[in-house]
Amino acid sequence: MNIPARLVEGYRGFRHTRFRRERDHYLRLAQSGQRPTTLMIACVDSRVAPEVVFDADPGEMLVVRNVANLVPPYQPDAGYHGTSAAIEFAVRQLKVAHIVVCGHASCGGINAFRHNTLNGVDAAHGDFVTRWVDMVAPATKLALTCEGVDPLQDQTAMELAAIRQSIMNLRSFPWLKAAEDAGELSLHGLWFDVADGSLRVLDEAAGAFDTLDDAPLG
Amino acid sequence: MNIPARLVEGYRGFRHTRFRRERDHYLRLAQSGQRPTTLMIACVDSRVAPEVVFDADPGEMLVVRNVANLVPPYQPDAGYHGTSAAIEFAVRQLKVAHIVVCGHASCGGINAFRHNTLNGVDAAHGDFVTRWVDMVAPATKLALTCEGVDPLQDQTAMELAAIRQSIMNLRSFPWLKAAEDAGELSLHGLWFDVADGSLRVLDEAAGAFDTLDDAPLG
Amino acid sequence: MNIPARLVEGYRGFRHTRFRRERDHYLRLAQSGQRPTTLMIACVDSRVAPEVVFDADPGEMLVVRNVANLVPPYQPDAGYHGTSAAIEFAVRQLKVAHIVVCGHASCGGINAFRHNTLNGVDAAHGDFVTRWVDMVAPATKLALTCEGVDPLQDQTAMELAAIRQSIMNLRSFPWLKAAEDAGELSLHGLWFDVADGSLRVLDEAAGAFDTLDDAPLG
Amino acid sequence: MNIPARLVEGYRGFRHTRFRRERDHYLRLAQSGQRPTTLMIACVDSRVAPEVVFDADPGEMLVVRNVANLVPPYQPDAGYHGTSAAIEFAVRQLKVAHIVVCGHASCGGINAFRHNTLNGVDAAHGDFVTRWVDMVAPATKLALTCEGVDPLQDQTAMELAAIRQSIMNLRSFPWLKAAEDAGELSLHGLWFDVADGSLRVLDEAAGAFDTLDDAPLG
Repeated sequence: MNIPARLVEGYRGFRHTRFRRERDHYLRLAQSGQRPTTLMIACVDSRVAPEVVFDADPGEMLVVRNVANLVPPYQPDAGYHGTSAAIEFAVRQLKVAHIVVCGHASCGGINAFRHNTLNGVDAAHGDFVTRWVDMVAPATKLALTCEGVDPLQDQTAMELAAIRQSIMNLRSFPWLKAAEDAGELSLHGLWFDVADGSLRVLDEAAGAFDTLDDAPLG
Repeated sequence: MNIPARLVEGYRGFRHTRFRRERDHYLRLAQSGQRPTTLMIACVDSRVAPEVVFDADPGEMLVVRNVANLVPPYQPDAGYHGTSAAIEFAVRQLKVAHIVVCGHASCGGINAFRHNTLNGVDAAHGDFVTRWVDMVAPATKLALTCEGVDPLQDQTAMELAAIRQSIMNLRSFPWLKAAEDAGELSLHGLWFDVADGSLRVLDEAAGAFDTLDDAPLG
Repeated sequence: MNIPARLVEGYRGFRHTRFRRERDHYLRLAQSGQRPTTLMIACVDSRVAPEVVFDADPGEMLVVRNVANLVPPYQPDAGYHGTSAAIEFAVRQLKVAHIVVCGHASCGGINAFRHNTLNGVDAAHGDFVTRWVDMVAPATKLALTCEGVDPLQDQTAMELAAIRQSIMNLRSFPWLKAAEDAGELSLHGLWFDVADGSLRVLDEAAGAFDTLDDAPLG
Repeated sequence: MNIPARLVEGYRGFRHTRFRRERDHYLRLAQSGQRPTTLMIACVDSRVAPEVVFDADPGEMLVVRNVANLVPPYQPDAGYHGTSAAIEFAVRQLKVAHIVVCGHASCGGINAFRHNTLNGVDAAHGDFVTRWVDMVAPATKLALTCEGVDPLQDQTAMELAAIRQSIMNLRSFPWLKAAEDAGELSLHGLWFDVADGSLRVLDEAAGAFDTLDDAPLG
């Protein structure tokens, strides 16, 4: 079966525009290896590509993407833990200086969690998605405390609370917590609004997400 | 702790160039929801951003990224399975028409597997990475058969074999296999060479990866 | 009076995306001077920016733009000849290897010429535009010969004929003709269709414009 | 003679990336005609493409380019006046709201004028360039007054003074002056530094060029 024509076309477009222009940079990165300074934990959503939204250069950020940009709690057992493996690779081997949990509006995974909870769907329903998004259950309390609203009724509040919880879960990884305590690593929460392109930034000290100040679009 | 200046700068660049230009498209995607036709399974590597390499528009492809672009075998238990959840979301809910496993040259995860195997490092070493990349162990036989070389001595052969194995693992998901058998879904393997920007495409019938024919760069 | 907000915004977008990415290249070009290999003679039209349509890098092509991408005949007198000065600068000083006359569909200047001719508007009407576009009057015969249609009834035929005539006028510059005869310079004619993005290329030997063969858009 | 391979490659890159993404916009512009709000008067220099530096969309600005971005004085005679024709087209037919004279650092045309003047080269030397750039001779006094330096010794001062003079020359076009007086048109001067990407803006009231305030690059 042939690969989709759009992929071939898109690849050729990339190769003859951006790759051509940056090929020396790609070659250097291939020869010297990557040294990203940021680990971005983002959603699989097709509308929120981190390298696009942050106009990142090749080599700038390691990007792990899963449904709803979640960080599971530290659980070093015999199972396959893809997100945790990426975090270990970023922190212990590449020694990134920043980890960013980047959520977004209209998240299908967060919406599924709200739907399941409101309708009493069991976490064992289906094979993987229901169980995976059930991971954010503890965040409902965070939303009540921080956003002051019932996150089951408010999609945005649940999305923001899930970001907070993922940051808490990051701190359950002992070597990550140690790096943060040593001042070698900082953790950040962002939320991107697909509809208007605005970005909210978590201010942990103030306990709030603030919209990034920016010039209006023309 | 403030978010990195480069992220703010990059975001502002995006917002005032590409987002401004495509904001109607973003707004429509926010209002009507995403309908990607492709699930891309890619690596966390900072040099291989799928939306860049395939010049994808917002909304075109769902992207799951983990260390070494691996697909675990079907294992529907009580654990958190991030990659499998993304696959379930893509196939059962979004009903994508294509799944692409996209590997690349100089993959740190594949290199770690080769190093560990050659040096007898136990899969339980460390917390997550060693165990995660050990998932490709069965692919060593595939490489011997298909590429005809010892993949422990040949990084590219191991990378290509891992793509083959991930496609085999995809077919262990019963509803995915059913969709493929029904002609509703097709599976593809790609491998991107960071150094020269070339792309190899898996031809399953011929049992080989072929470099995509393309005009030379000027 | 302040400069338009869109210019400031656009400039900031450029500076923080493309300029940032290519600033080493810009710096080198500033230090070593430009060495473009092509002179592009294009229209002032807001829909046909040569650097966009040909995805040109900074430093690649010298670009002169006037109404209807016209080349006046060689006329070295005491008047100010902007287009001829650009041609002299390109050929005698920068020694470009190519000159491209790039026309396009829906050209307002060509349309004005056709309107004026059909309605008997005198070339002295208005201050400059009528006189300027009247320069293409000899091309009406070229269109009858080469395109086989009455160019006053056919906008595209007139646009193509005007490109042919500009190339003839280029050859009236003695040092340019000498460079072409010496094999150091080649002349080309292109026509861009704004509506569908196709490009026609003048084949002088065959006496025809051919659409550039290209893969269809996805 | 075939067109340069880089042009074909660049065109294909454009067509399969930006044109594909914006083709609805191009089609609308082809059907409804252009309505640019700005006339940009820029240099032929290969390093200073206005649509790139101001990240302009198709349809946004009419662009006339000549050696050293000069505006000749109003001279409605039987000669061919390309720049003046573009100005007439922009002001009287398209009724643009802004005219921007955009100069830049390391301008070859301004440098030629300084060289010629310092070395007593006659304006009749060569065919067109010497005469064309001699147009800025009156600006040497402007530079002494406004920049306070001898512009024959200072390339930047001469470049800035030439922009001032072009704006004065614009006001010699009676219908342009009338539009400005009626508040329907505003005139602007900009100067782009190729080496560091900074932009200076003419403040006519204050009699000075100010660097546009901007965030530093990361």
